[in-house]
Amino acid sequence: MDIRIILPIIGDQFNKEVEKEVKQFISSGTTVDIKNLRRGTASIESVYDEALGSPDIIDKVVEAEKEGIDAVFVDCFGDPGVDAAREMVSIPVVGGFQPAVLTACLLAGRFTVVSVLPSVVPMIRNLCRKMGVESNLASIRYINTPVLDLLEKGSLLDKLYGELEKAVHQDGAEAIVLGCTGMLGLAKGLQEKASQNGVSLPVIDPTGAAIGFLELLVRNGITHSKVTFPVPTEKERRF
Amino acid sequence: MDIRIILPIIGDQFNKEVEKEVKQFISSGTTVDIKNLRRGTASIESVYDEALGSPDIIDKVVEAEKEGIDAVFVDCFGDPGVDAAREMVSIPVVGGFQPAVLTACLLAGRFTVVSVLPSVVPMIRNLCRKMGVESNLASIRYINTPVLDLLEKGSLLDKLYGELEKAVHQDGAEAIVLGCTGMLGLAKGLQEKASQNGVSLPVIDPTGAAIGFLELLVRNGITHSKVTFPVPTEKERRF
Amino acid sequence: MDIRIILPIIGDQFNKEVEKEVKQFISSGTTVDIKNLRRGTASIESVYDEALGSPDIIDKVVEAEKEGIDAVFVDCFGDPGVDAAREMVSIPVVGGFQPAVLTACLLAGRFTVVSVLPSVVPMIRNLCRKMGVESNLASIRYINTPVLDLLEKGSLLDKLYGELEKAVHQDGAEAIVLGCTGMLGLAKGLQEKASQNGVSLPVIDPTGAAIGFLELLVRNGITHSKVTFPVPTEKERRF
Amino acid sequence: MDIRIILPIIGDQFNKEVEKEVKQFISSGTTVDIKNLRRGTASIESVYDEALGSPDIIDKVVEAEKEGIDAVFVDCFGDPGVDAAREMVSIPVVGGFQPAVLTACLLAGRFTVVSVLPSVVPMIRNLCRKMGVESNLASIRYINTPVLDLLEKGSLLDKLYGELEKAVHQDGAEAIVLGCTGMLGLAKGLQEKASQNGVSLPVIDPTGAAIGFLELLVRNGITHSKVTFPVPTEKERRF
Amino acid sequence: MDIRIILPIIGDQFNKEVEKEVKQFISSGTTVDIKNLRRGTASIESVYDEALGSPDIIDKVVEAEKEGIDAVFVDCFGDPGVDAAREMVSIPVVGGFQPAVLTACLLAGRFTVVSVLPSVVPMIRNLCRKMGVESNLASIRYINTPVLDLLEKGSLLDKLYGELEKAVHQDGAEAIVLGCTGMLGLAKGLQEKASQNGVSLPVIDPTGAAIGFLELLVRNGITHSKVTFPVPTEKERRF
Amino acid sequence: MDIRIILPIIGDQFNKEVEKEVKQFISSGTTVDIKNLRRGTASIESVYDEALGSPDIIDKVVEAEKEGIDAVFVDCFGDPGVDAAREMVSIPVVGGFQPAVLTACLLAGRFTVVSVLPSVVPMIRNLCRKMGVESNLASIRYINTPVLDLLEKGSLLDKLYGELEKAVHQDGAEAIVLGCTGMLGLAKGLQEKASQNGVSLPVIDPTGAAIGFLELLVRNGITHSKVTFPVPTEKERRF
Repeated sequence: MDIRIILPIIGDQFNKEVEKEVKQFISSGTTVDIKNLRRGTASIESVYDEALGSPDIIDKVVEAEKEGIDAVFVDCFGDPGVDAAREMVSIPVVGGFQPAVLTACLLAGRFTVVSVLPSVVPMIRNLCRKMGVESNLASIRYINTPVLDLLEKGSLLDKLYGELEKAVHQDGAEAIVLGCTGMLGLAKGLQEKASQNGVSLPVIDPTGAAIGFLELLVRNGITHSKVTFPVPTEKERRF
Repeated sequence: MDIRIILPIIGDQFNKEVEKEVKQFISSGTTVDIKNLRRGTASIESVYDEALGSPDIIDKVVEAEKEGIDAVFVDCFGDPGVDAAREMVSIPVVGGFQPAVLTACLLAGRFTVVSVLPSVVPMIRNLCRKMGVESNLASIRYINTPVLDLLEKGSLLDKLYGELEKAVHQDGAEAIVLGCTGMLGLAKGLQEKASQNGVSLPVIDPTGAAIGFLELLVRNGITHSKVTFPVPTEKERRF
Repeated sequence: MDIRIILPIIGDQFNKEVEKEVKQFISSGTTVDIKNLRRGTASIESVYDEALGSPDIIDKVVEAEKEGIDAVFVDCFGDPGVDAAREMVSIPVVGGFQPAVLTACLLAGRFTVVSVLPSVVPMIRNLCRKMGVESNLASIRYINTPVLDLLEKGSLLDKLYGELEKAVHQDGAEAIVLGCTGMLGLAKGLQEKASQNGVSLPVIDPTGAAIGFLELLVRNGITHSKVTFPVPTEKERRF
Repeated sequence: MDIRIILPIIGDQFNKEVEKEVKQFISSGTTVDIKNLRRGTASIESVYDEALGSPDIIDKVVEAEKEGIDAVFVDCFGDPGVDAAREMVSIPVVGGFQPAVLTACLLAGRFTVVSVLPSVVPMIRNLCRKMGVESNLASIRYINTPVLDLLEKGSLLDKLYGELEKAVHQDGAEAIVLGCTGMLGLAKGLQEKASQNGVSLPVIDPTGAAIGFLELLVRNGITHSKVTFPVPTEKERRF
Repeated sequence: MDIRIILPIIGDQFNKEVEKEVKQFISSGTTVDIKNLRRGTASIESVYDEALGSPDIIDKVVEAEKEGIDAVFVDCFGDPGVDAAREMVSIPVVGGFQPAVLTACLLAGRFTVVSVLPSVVPMIRNLCRKMGVESNLASIRYINTPVLDLLEKGSLLDKLYGELEKAVHQDGAEAIVLGCTGMLGLAKGLQEKASQNGVSLPVIDPTGAAIGFLELLVRNGITHSKVTFPVPTEKERRF
Repeated sequence: MDIRIILPIIGDQFNKEVEKEVKQFISSGTTVDIKNLRRGTASIESVYDEALGSPDIIDKVVEAEKEGIDAVFVDCFGDPGVDAAREMVSIPVVGGFQPAVLTACLLAGRFTVVSVLPSVVPMIRNLCRKMGVESNLASIRYINTPVLDLLEKGSLLDKLYGELEKAVHQDGAEAIVLGCTGMLGLAKGLQEKASQNGVSLPVIDPTGAAIGFLELLVRNGITHSKVTFPVPTEKERRF
């Protein structure tokens, strides 16, 4: 099957790392390619950034379906443009939030999302509410690091581990969801560090969960509901 | 005080009626003007329509603040672009959904939203969930009429009354919220018709509720929280 | 429009201050007068106090409607007697709780109520549950000061600010609701102090929110639902 | 142990039947006596009725504690005055709602309350919300019969059974709570009639549940929390 | 009435103490006897322990009904085997969890469960969710002591009191539920110690609550719903 | 990767069909084998059936881990023994409920489970509550057909479609979950029939969802949380 990754920012500096990481999550026979946005923002850390990127994200999803792609991953934890894009296509489309958080609901009773900046806390809470899983949310934490700084891996593991410890011991978390798709290649190390310190819990990488869910959907021959995401009616649209 | 109404569609066919209607809801000393979008859609009936209109809605809100406007009403029941716009300004900004539904929560234990098309049902449910009031929602109903057909008032009252009756007798509604800001000038008549048929409940017009809330906010010297809607950080944005 | 404030205690020591404060919240053309109770308590800080005051509150609301008053504010954060009074009249009646908390739901994702004494915490939680907004409640805090001591403004701002800081940094509050209508004239200063310390969030005065909501209701020609608050049947009542 | 029943209306026409019925629910060694109100209403079917009866209910509960009574049942499904009375005494005090509904939560996954008139539906919903069990509530139904007409047992069983059938087959009820303490001596017959028609579910009489809970509390040496129901502070109270 | 206690472990070392304790909770005329398991575990501290004990628990409940016993208490806070046993019999069957927690819901707005080990925290949370009362749960705490060590009463009261203090002052608990039926004879002392330190709240012993509820059910002539717990169909079962 | 399917009944009549069906859901390189129970029941349609089968299910999961199997699917929609088994092993273990329902939460706003008999309705509701997704549940329906009759495919599609129509048009379902793993090979046909009748929504086969989730988990290197499912302590266990 062919999966398209839309990395919904105007720069391509994450592409190589994403490509490398994704390979460990796909099954043999699955291909992956990556597209960025022409119009949008350098990173997504606000509802404003999401709003500016959404029109081009939708275009890119529509284009993917026309090209015969089987499934699309909008590679951002805020699921920007995903609902709108689902209205426009029939192939499965997921962002980073839903697959990761649903996987957490499978593996543990309560989870903590550890993300980048305080500005995304209300956005993530709203996503939890919209999907009806807020009662499983132990807390939303952040490492106070902008998305674009995530490329330097230096102290990231320590920062994440500091929040993991507070999540487990203060908030009652039983699983950790990495709350930014830019936190690539860190889940495994974080999980091991916690385990070495006596806390065995899953650390969920949103990229891996998204790829896994897309394979599941394609193999099952199912996609998002057109009752929930009906095809928009014809009308004048000037854009 | 000066209120700006952003009627977030690319046509101006509703403007006159809005202007006329709004006058009954403002206090003396309040001025109102109306702007439409340059880029967007002819009406808003899908998440896709919201996504296409949002960038220009945000621009128009930012412009309003720069011009010294005191408060902004984004004149659509789906609150399109409102969260993103709040991040960008300090003046109060409301859409049609929040003021109307909060007013319903004040006046009754459970309310039904009566809107236009089945496509908006999931959108309205998500708004209720996001605002944390889903347990007060008796049902979401629709009259199966596109927004642009609302200009012909002909049978609208009858269609709305049909849904009101089902809302009250089947769903347990104790108040009705008109779920489209295009349903102008209908609330009073609907409320009277219900009363004549022995059911005395409020029918809430989202335009009137929005204007009332904006006056409340300006007089109280309060606006949306910048903890919930923080100012986006500086970064490259290409749009 | 004519608004009647029922200050539901047997003393009139707050009346002057209320009268002065209220003037900033009304629009031109609105008049306000104030009544106290003949039978009731010196202040309201328990369900017991509410029970003793309710019969006279109801009488005063009925009297207001008979006198042609347009809307009534029962000036206490516990909304004492409000539901019963709504059953007896058709004009809008609000207490301090509902308008303030609904305004918080408009402006922020989660709010903290800061009130007077630990004894009112269960009362406020029950009001949040009854109105269906408990999931938006970050916490209920108190400054450990009886209502009647609120007349001396001395250290009040500092006490309130201490709780505001804990609300924001420990409980995740994104807005503050002053949880006693006796906390008059403090919202603006508290909001400014928080802003100077880098936290920009609304501090909501229940009096201002109540007046604003009553104006909204009267201008919209709507009032509480008689399905939720039906007229009591005729029967023997000895009181 | 000595239990006091406060039948919170100004007439005594229910007393004999209550006395007779209660005997089947008490253990040997338990005594029961009954008091009515001097000030209040002929029956309780509105929040207004509750407000008028509450002050005298509280007095009667305080009096019971002074007389050495062990526990008090405020014999009305709306729990009028119960919270306020609990603030004033240390002995257990229950109304009809809490014991019956908690018993339903023990015996079934979802329950329906069948009460007297549409006017009590919002009151019962609010009690469910306050106690945090609304998710177990299948529906609230009523037989459209005023409380005082319950003395004539004629067609009551048929009316109740009609609602029971709709509760089970339309609303998904798995237990029935009789929603008025005036529905005396009917639970057993209703349960049997349902069983004969192939539906075996508990029909819970609020009087029996209340007496059972009071015995439980006294034997366990526990009473309501003074954190939830703190003793009101001293102050001027004119009543 | 005759109550059977199934102490669902393979040892009988708790039997004597249970027998002694239970006597204070029963009314005159009630008899109690105790049975242990032939197959099961030495104590119950995991879902695994529950699974191993359940088949024999069910057998013992069925046996009790055949012997003419009126009601059964499965003497463990996790309610092991209770739902399955209810499917197989018509007499009332309760475990330790439901009666204790429902009693807490009657007496206070929010409660904390203090149990034995961290391993039971998810089990207790699931029970709260299943019964629909999670919103009343302030927290689940534990004294880090295995069940079998509860026989030595030495420092238990101090450990429990330490958790009670944190429950009240950090978590907002207004009542305490002892979260293991092995915590026998401790509720009264813990309640008194709290009261002496200025916190008057109920400490609920699950054994006392269970016995009280069974007496309530038998006297009311009600039992669990066969809609919720239908009789299993005939089929091959090899065990 | 090697997946073990535990078909938790004592007969093997479903094995062949399961083996055939599963092949369409696995990726190349994945192997699957199937085991039945020695002790248990002919089918699982009650909590009682689950209790009898759980001990052997746990044994079989432990055995699978010892044999080097990568992941286990307990092939029943009630997730029998899954929580207990997770305590005993580190490899991923899922039943049919969680993967299917979480997939529904990804693809639609609200879903209906269509299962076999009325007896499983409370069981499925409890699973939804335990996983915290009850607010997304539109309804639980059943075709009134015992599990063992599912082998005759004759009228099954029609029965399922009848419930699907009611789910969509009466209950507001936007996705369908087949609520029994015995409903093999029906999802695709049901989805197509609905689509031909103008309703495009996903019909989720629990077997396909489970296999897909296990592949996701193994590829991501994650498993259930040992905080939620801690290893049981050593103690005497007689079984």
